[in-house]
Amino acid sequence: MKLGTLKHAIDHKPVADDFAIIEADRPTCPENGILVRVVHLSLDPYVGSRLRGRHMGEPAPEPMKRAIPGAIVGQVIESEAAGFAEGDWVHAMEGGWQEYVALSASEARKIDPSVAPLAAHAGVLGMPGLTAWAGITQLAKVGAGDTVLIDAAAGPVGGTVGQIARIKGADRVVGIAGGPEKCALVTGAYGFDACIDYKTDGWRERLADALPDGLSVFFENVSADMAMLALTHARLYARGVLCGLVDAYHTDTQSQHPLNAGLIIGKRAQLSGLVVYDFYPRWDEYIAEAAPWIASGQLKFAEDRAGGLEQAPALFERLMNGKNKGKAVVTVAPEQV
Amino acid sequence: MKLGTLKHAIDHKPVADDFAIIEADRPTCPENGILVRVVHLSLDPYVGSRLRGRHMGEPAPEPMKRAIPGAIVGQVIESEAAGFAEGDWVHAMEGGWQEYVALSASEARKIDPSVAPLAAHAGVLGMPGLTAWAGITQLAKVGAGDTVLIDAAAGPVGGTVGQIARIKGADRVVGIAGGPEKCALVTGAYGFDACIDYKTDGWRERLADALPDGLSVFFENVSADMAMLALTHARLYARGVLCGLVDAYHTDTQSQHPLNAGLIIGKRAQLSGLVVYDFYPRWDEYIAEAAPWIASGQLKFAEDRAGGLEQAPALFERLMNGKNKGKAVVTVAPEQV
Repeated sequence: MKLGTLKHAIDHKPVADDFAIIEADRPTCPENGILVRVVHLSLDPYVGSRLRGRHMGEPAPEPMKRAIPGAIVGQVIESEAAGFAEGDWVHAMEGGWQEYVALSASEARKIDPSVAPLAAHAGVLGMPGLTAWAGITQLAKVGAGDTVLIDAAAGPVGGTVGQIARIKGADRVVGIAGGPEKCALVTGAYGFDACIDYKTDGWRERLADALPDGLSVFFENVSADMAMLALTHARLYARGVLCGLVDAYHTDTQSQHPLNAGLIIGKRAQLSGLVVYDFYPRWDEYIAEAAPWIASGQLKFAEDRAGGLEQAPALFERLMNGKNKGKAVVTVAPEQV
Repeated sequence: MKLGTLKHAIDHKPVADDFAIIEADRPTCPENGILVRVVHLSLDPYVGSRLRGRHMGEPAPEPMKRAIPGAIVGQVIESEAAGFAEGDWVHAMEGGWQEYVALSASEARKIDPSVAPLAAHAGVLGMPGLTAWAGITQLAKVGAGDTVLIDAAAGPVGGTVGQIARIKGADRVVGIAGGPEKCALVTGAYGFDACIDYKTDGWRERLADALPDGLSVFFENVSADMAMLALTHARLYARGVLCGLVDAYHTDTQSQHPLNAGLIIGKRAQLSGLVVYDFYPRWDEYIAEAAPWIASGQLKFAEDRAGGLEQAPALFERLMNGKNKGKAVVTVAPEQV
């Protein structure tokens, strides 16, 4: 089978040429586990850090041997695990860039292929969507009266954050994104009230104009500096969700990502760190709530889709450079065989 | 009457010689207001910043004219305000270094002289105590299972924080203070489980030893660096109250007081800014809860008391240098006349 791996250990922002697609032995079904045919592979920014051994203490995968990590949606082709049968569809965070994957029962989560398109489980119903839901509904507890600011707003986390905030009753939802195409997605399909293009002159003034009554919630995906910019526009008692520091994933090794404690105090702000791992036990609850939103058209998602594992390196490089529009998904194999 | 004022505008940590005690006209009772004989005057660290116009945007008092700001406990000697009668005892944040003060009705809060010693309303039942109560009961919501770390633990805020945490059921309360005398107060009268003297070698190791299972709550009085030290000892989902940055009150003009966003995320911490102003409407509720604790001996307090307005400058200098042990209070006049 095909397997995507690192050519060599890296300590830079990954580019397509850092990856190799090699032939590897197809795994066998493990005792008490399942063998899964990978159909959709999720490409996510955190993997850029993990490839350098800098994500949550997890080791980088061994070059020319181990698959690049990545969440997958696939179909069970052999099962020795109670509760899983051949033909079942599953999602697994520890799938990886490979055509087949052996999983323990605890690594796989069964999904219902009827509730939404299968690839959605890699994005809006996958880890990015769960992240957005956790931040908005469990930490910031957004509701009526809230004005919410989200950066990286065209991304699969940010776009979902804004839409769920709206569904939960937020008065106003403002995004920050880079470039006119991304902003068009944010105010178009995603329905934000405004989107500020940070690549244009005068964007900070336009951000202030877009928040005439300030913000009550901000969801931070990019950097400590952006969080502090949000806080300058915050009303008293604003809530901030600290989710990601994408700007630093590839540039920093020792940065302190400084937040200004004085400003936090002055604004009586409440800041909460969010790591989506903590919400994995509630994934089914999220899907039960969000799948009807997708069906009704309240929750939209965009995909940047590639076909075949050979396309994964180029799409990953696009993702690393913020050139994707929507969730980066590689369809490794057809859904129907 | 006597009035304490600045000799000159200052832009440094105040010393005794920056103050003058001058003769001023005794104010008259304002329309719809009260005239109060000042008995106890509270000296507080935030005033050091305010004297330089660097506290919450409030202006510095005009030298040789306006009284140094300070909360007071006093007795009404004339009243033209509904609800206040001659002989009533009041507390006012905007009292100041003067023997008599004219107040509007909204600036004064009536206190019951029977619930606790009158001077306690300048400290443990005053603004420092309300700050501690707000942080522990309203923001961090401390209860059984919590381990709480507090710095500036010998101070009137810190000492009260730890005792209220204990009353509310915390499993373990650890303080940080400077010097053996302060630490003896913290583990003695205040009953903390441990106090680490940060002026001794190896204190960071001893802090780790004092938190064998980490902390679940920290109450920050000193600096962003100390908050980050606390966070390195935090369990996941720890709550931090950001209350004061005393280390910076006199040294900084532009500091960013940097908190590390990456560490906050990794620990899934929740940080809340606390400004006690917001809790002034709940002062009576606090006193109703805390006065019985004082009566029963559960809540203890220490005072660094001086007699006469002439002693205020020297005591204020001691406070600025952290040499006070317990709440700095100047008794301006006898309680009974």
